[in-house]
Amino acid sequence: MTKSKSAYSVPTKLGKLEKHIIIVWVDNEAGVLARVVGLFSGRGYNIDSLTVAEVDKKNNLSRITIVTTGTPEVIDQIKLHLKKLIPVHKVADFLRGDKKIIYREMALFKIVSAVKRQENAKRLCKKYNLIILDKTNKSIVLQVTALRREIDNLVENLKKFGLVSVSRTGAVAMTRGAQTFR
Amino acid sequence: MTKSKSAYSVPTKLGKLEKHIIIVWVDNEAGVLARVVGLFSGRGYNIDSLTVAEVDKKNNLSRITIVTTGTPEVIDQIKLHLKKLIPVHKVADFLRGDKKIIYREMALFKIVSAVKRQENAKRLCKKYNLIILDKTNKSIVLQVTALRREIDNLVENLKKFGLVSVSRTGAVAMTRGAQTFR
Repeated sequence: MTKSKSAYSVPTKLGKLEKHIIIVWVDNEAGVLARVVGLFSGRGYNIDSLTVAEVDKKNNLSRITIVTTGTPEVIDQIKLHLKKLIPVHKVADFLRGDKKIIYREMALFKIVSAVKRQENAKRLCKKYNLIILDKTNKSIVLQVTALRREIDNLVENLKKFGLVSVSRTGAVAMTRGAQTFR
Repeated sequence: MTKSKSAYSVPTKLGKLEKHIIIVWVDNEAGVLARVVGLFSGRGYNIDSLTVAEVDKKNNLSRITIVTTGTPEVIDQIKLHLKKLIPVHKVADFLRGDKKIIYREMALFKIVSAVKRQENAKRLCKKYNLIILDKTNKSIVLQVTALRREIDNLVENLKKFGLVSVSRTGAVAMTRGAQTFR
């Protein structure tokens, strides 16, 4: 969710706006997600994208990945508050562009157009691990995985080829190498 | 988030538990996600996974995809409440297994093990659009896209090959064919 009108979302003397990816490991129980999200919205903090899913059934853990924009001070406040929530196990925070991190997002595109424009759409998506999920003579559904900004560009560029519906997951992230975040 | 202790999450005489995917188109503004999520958690409704991202910059629209479990009556209540929220434009609801719908989820797996077990891990993932995102002599990071239950199975089966970290997006969905949901 962007476009907050809160003072938190505009640059201040305190620091310049940065894009962060915040990963939160929480107990998988009702209400946790509401508390995490409420922590952002209650303060007018922006959420650009959010994903949550269970990642460890045995230990009943879910992993929330949030992309947000803020000054370093705001991000530090968010992290402090997150760590104080009881069902939160750990919190990781990375800057966009951090080379230690792999960011990925998946998108589904529905294209409704004649076959020639469908072919153009497929050509645009070809280098983003394109999978064709559905095909009729009037339509195709394409799956791509890419970086957030690459998907932003695809959404713009596919419009002229008949893009009628977009579904995207928001970013997930993983550190490179053998280390895990503790 | 599963494992709610609310009466809503156990089967009752009213109907049997079904897995649903609910898609909500909302204005992309601060606080909307909190209200949507609060609507579930305030009533003890389960959220198995949730993704939200902006899908239409020009019209300032975000698309939220929620996987949840409930009786038909509970799901109907949720939809009614969702439709009453001001920033909600439309709400779609599909049953798991509905052939009109394509469901997809992306997962990242970090495997820390000797090369032989890494190879076994890759073999397991091969048919799920495997991409190798990172590689060291001790570790690999794999990307797959698949159905939710296929990713559940991969998480279980990759443990013996050195799975140390999982990040998954939760499901997104798109109808087949040329129609779009209105």
